[in-house]
Amino acid sequence: MAEKITPRSQDFSQWYQDIVLQAKMADYSPVKGCMVIRANGYAVWEKIQQDLDRRIKKSGARNYYFPFLIPESFLKKEAEHVEGFAPELAIVTHAGGKKLEEPLVARPTSETIINSMFAKWIQSYRDLPHMINQWANVIRWEMRTRLFLRTTEFLWQEGHTCHATAEEAEAETRTMLGVYRDFAEEILAMPVCWGRKSDNERFAGALRTYCIEGMMQDKKALQAGTSHNLSTNFAKAFETQFLDKDGKQKLVHQTSWGVSTRLIGGMIMTHSDDKGLVLPPRLATTHVVIVPIMPKADTKGAVIAAAGSLRTEIENSAAVKALPYEIGILVDDDDQKQAGWKFHEHELTGTPIRIEIGPRDLEKGTAVVTRRDLGVKEFVALSEIPAKIAGDLAAMQGEMLEKARKFRDENTFEVDTYDEMKSKIEQGGFFVVSWSGDSLLEKKIKEETKATIRCLLLDENYEPKKSSKPCFYTGEKSEKNVLAIFARSY
Amino acid sequence: MAEKITPRSQDFSQWYQDIVLQAKMADYSPVKGCMVIRANGYAVWEKIQQDLDRRIKKSGARNYYFPFLIPESFLKKEAEHVEGFAPELAIVTHAGGKKLEEPLVARPTSETIINSMFAKWIQSYRDLPHMINQWANVIRWEMRTRLFLRTTEFLWQEGHTCHATAEEAEAETRTMLGVYRDFAEEILAMPVCWGRKSDNERFAGALRTYCIEGMMQDKKALQAGTSHNLSTNFAKAFETQFLDKDGKQKLVHQTSWGVSTRLIGGMIMTHSDDKGLVLPPRLATTHVVIVPIMPKADTKGAVIAAAGSLRTEIENSAAVKALPYEIGILVDDDDQKQAGWKFHEHELTGTPIRIEIGPRDLEKGTAVVTRRDLGVKEFVALSEIPAKIAGDLAAMQGEMLEKARKFRDENTFEVDTYDEMKSKIEQGGFFVVSWSGDSLLEKKIKEETKATIRCLLLDENYEPKKSSKPCFYTGEKSEKNVLAIFARSY
Repeated sequence: MAEKITPRSQDFSQWYQDIVLQAKMADYSPVKGCMVIRANGYAVWEKIQQDLDRRIKKSGARNYYFPFLIPESFLKKEAEHVEGFAPELAIVTHAGGKKLEEPLVARPTSETIINSMFAKWIQSYRDLPHMINQWANVIRWEMRTRLFLRTTEFLWQEGHTCHATAEEAEAETRTMLGVYRDFAEEILAMPVCWGRKSDNERFAGALRTYCIEGMMQDKKALQAGTSHNLSTNFAKAFETQFLDKDGKQKLVHQTSWGVSTRLIGGMIMTHSDDKGLVLPPRLATTHVVIVPIMPKADTKGAVIAAAGSLRTEIENSAAVKALPYEIGILVDDDDQKQAGWKFHEHELTGTPIRIEIGPRDLEKGTAVVTRRDLGVKEFVALSEIPAKIAGDLAAMQGEMLEKARKFRDENTFEVDTYDEMKSKIEQGGFFVVSWSGDSLLEKKIKEETKATIRCLLLDENYEPKKSSKPCFYTGEKSEKNVLAIFARSY
Repeated sequence: MAEKITPRSQDFSQWYQDIVLQAKMADYSPVKGCMVIRANGYAVWEKIQQDLDRRIKKSGARNYYFPFLIPESFLKKEAEHVEGFAPELAIVTHAGGKKLEEPLVARPTSETIINSMFAKWIQSYRDLPHMINQWANVIRWEMRTRLFLRTTEFLWQEGHTCHATAEEAEAETRTMLGVYRDFAEEILAMPVCWGRKSDNERFAGALRTYCIEGMMQDKKALQAGTSHNLSTNFAKAFETQFLDKDGKQKLVHQTSWGVSTRLIGGMIMTHSDDKGLVLPPRLATTHVVIVPIMPKADTKGAVIAAAGSLRTEIENSAAVKALPYEIGILVDDDDQKQAGWKFHEHELTGTPIRIEIGPRDLEKGTAVVTRRDLGVKEFVALSEIPAKIAGDLAAMQGEMLEKARKFRDENTFEVDTYDEMKSKIEQGGFFVVSWSGDSLLEKKIKEETKATIRCLLLDENYEPKKSSKPCFYTGEKSEKNVLAIFARSY
């Protein structure tokens, strides 16, 4: 009955789609470009939300909820912003049976509506910093969509903060970049490069944009999170001002930052294999599946009882309780399904650890433990299984990150010339180059190679890292030359 | 600096608005009918979500996410449904810079889009029951809006389930009604009547609608949650069918059920007083505020240290840890603010317990403990405070429910004639009457008194409870007569 997953080597894009659909992470909807997030996908989003929400609250922001519909005129107040988003807007023209006097747009992001409230709430330096976050749906009318990676509607969190000084806003922008980087590596087990966007890729309305970028198994980059220093651009447009200690009215300095359901796609393309999903334990709901092997009626009862005891022992084990998260254990004793079918199903949906236990295991006092990412069967004494599970889950989380980091590093190349990059671009990878910073040249490179600057690497002061080499494109040495990563991307 | 809250006795509606705005629960937005949920309000919504989500998952449903935009044609597939919702729709006509071929509507509820997916996913009896839930924003273009109670956009959860038989669907509808009832009473401390809606008040597209109804302090009713048996109405419209064990294709029997951010308004109007919010402990983020009283510089250090120790002792106390939720404790030692200002602020925002500790308390080894709902100061030995806090929080949750229940019962009247109800209707309350069930008469009563049937009371079989008395309106005895609650409502 099982459908076949296209191997990565044959068609990476098809492989990704097969996994998303067959593991019931998401499905296509009848609304163009919009997906349905199914239970297995949404459970991952809930894990992402729980952990990231804790980090965001710890950073000092509190959750709010702002209207989904924004007056069209609001978007027009910040010139770059409207230029960037206008082509992607969905517009409500009629409501309650009437034509609206002013059209409302479905939020593509909420800087404008939130600034209209900031302008009302913020009066004095005592009201600063003001730090808010929102978990919400947004709509951007995309032409080419892919499940999780780029959809017309997606779910995200968007943080918005106001500060008294430019320095504080810059510090907050960097802090949140760090929160995203740590989150991506610790929870998604996704190693990320981080840096600043070039002007071409900057958020519409920002002074500067920082980002984290992961490398997928097809060696393409995925932008996984962005943090923007908005300077006073939106404050000017909305007159978001405060009375400072010195008695002067000043504009607030702002930031915004976000990650979205796109992370789920990135996680899948970082870790999964030709058998299906490989979930980092931190994102799993069911961490361990125990499959009782029941070949004969006379031993069935004993095997099911042993599987149940094993579950209890794992649940109650001090080592398992010491893990920084609660683990879910399923005894899959449905006797309408063959063990082989169950193995396949749990490999497809990415359950981190499988335990098989049958009559012969019972005689020997052992069970077979298999880590999803390694796929190697191990015979383990029953008494040692709880400690083994705790150790394996912790190890798996760390080793998945390191495996992905090794892959990323092996596919990151320092190249000195444009010809060298062009000769390697079809194989994919990250290309670290010395770059003179010309936006027009960057566009030309994109046209010729489909590669863009993913980020400018930064020095310890978060300024683009100087390069002593000639620009890889122009061949010219210059004080302005900095290190940039070029790659094809999602 | 503090604004004054209008007393309930003077203007209940203004009192409610004062509390919502001054306690920073929500604010008006520049988008007509849409509110901004501020941090204090959203924190309550998060507590509601956490607890209710657990109950919903325990019932067997899993969380999904479906598109916000629905093709207009989908709503038209179920005749009653479109008739009910058409006047409230917001319509997207343009997107991505172009006029859409088919307009999309902002979801007012998701039966239609979800059925389009159910029809794809459900093939066989093995796929049933199929139980899903969604936490989402919805839009209903309302003419008259009030913060939390009725807003153009609101947040809610909507459950949607498919079953093989009519009996199973009816059982699920009742189960979820029970989940809502228990949740309202245990977590919101809001006593609710429950029953079936009359045909006039039934959900557009349902066979029957069950509901829970709370009584606010102005003696008006608030519909707090609904659970619908949809029968095969949507299944017919979307051809949601399954191959049953007997080899026949059959329509699925469906339910849907939801509660929304309206619950926050209901909770406020059930418990709060003229000083501000009174939060049931289960909905608080900060449960205890410790206010150090620091009249002089030489004792300030000792008082702050004692406040800190007290926090630690409360946090580490076994009695506090045995509570079914984590508690938040704030030491409010900001010396820019007077103690009186802090008392006022925490009364306004509903912190369940306040502890004052000053130099004289230190000498005596005591502190002053005040429960927000009672407002009575108690001197308590420091060593006894942790147990006192645990006891007070548990007692407060239960007593708030009982106080509200007593109020509700004292304002519930059995009336035999329409004249009797009319003579009392201005005072408010629930009116339990014998009712012959005529929809046209019900509409007439609404016109004359602004009162509607909140629910038909049910017998042990969930059928409307027979009444042996004559109909309170027609004066006629009949087998059809049942017990109904009439009330004015939000």
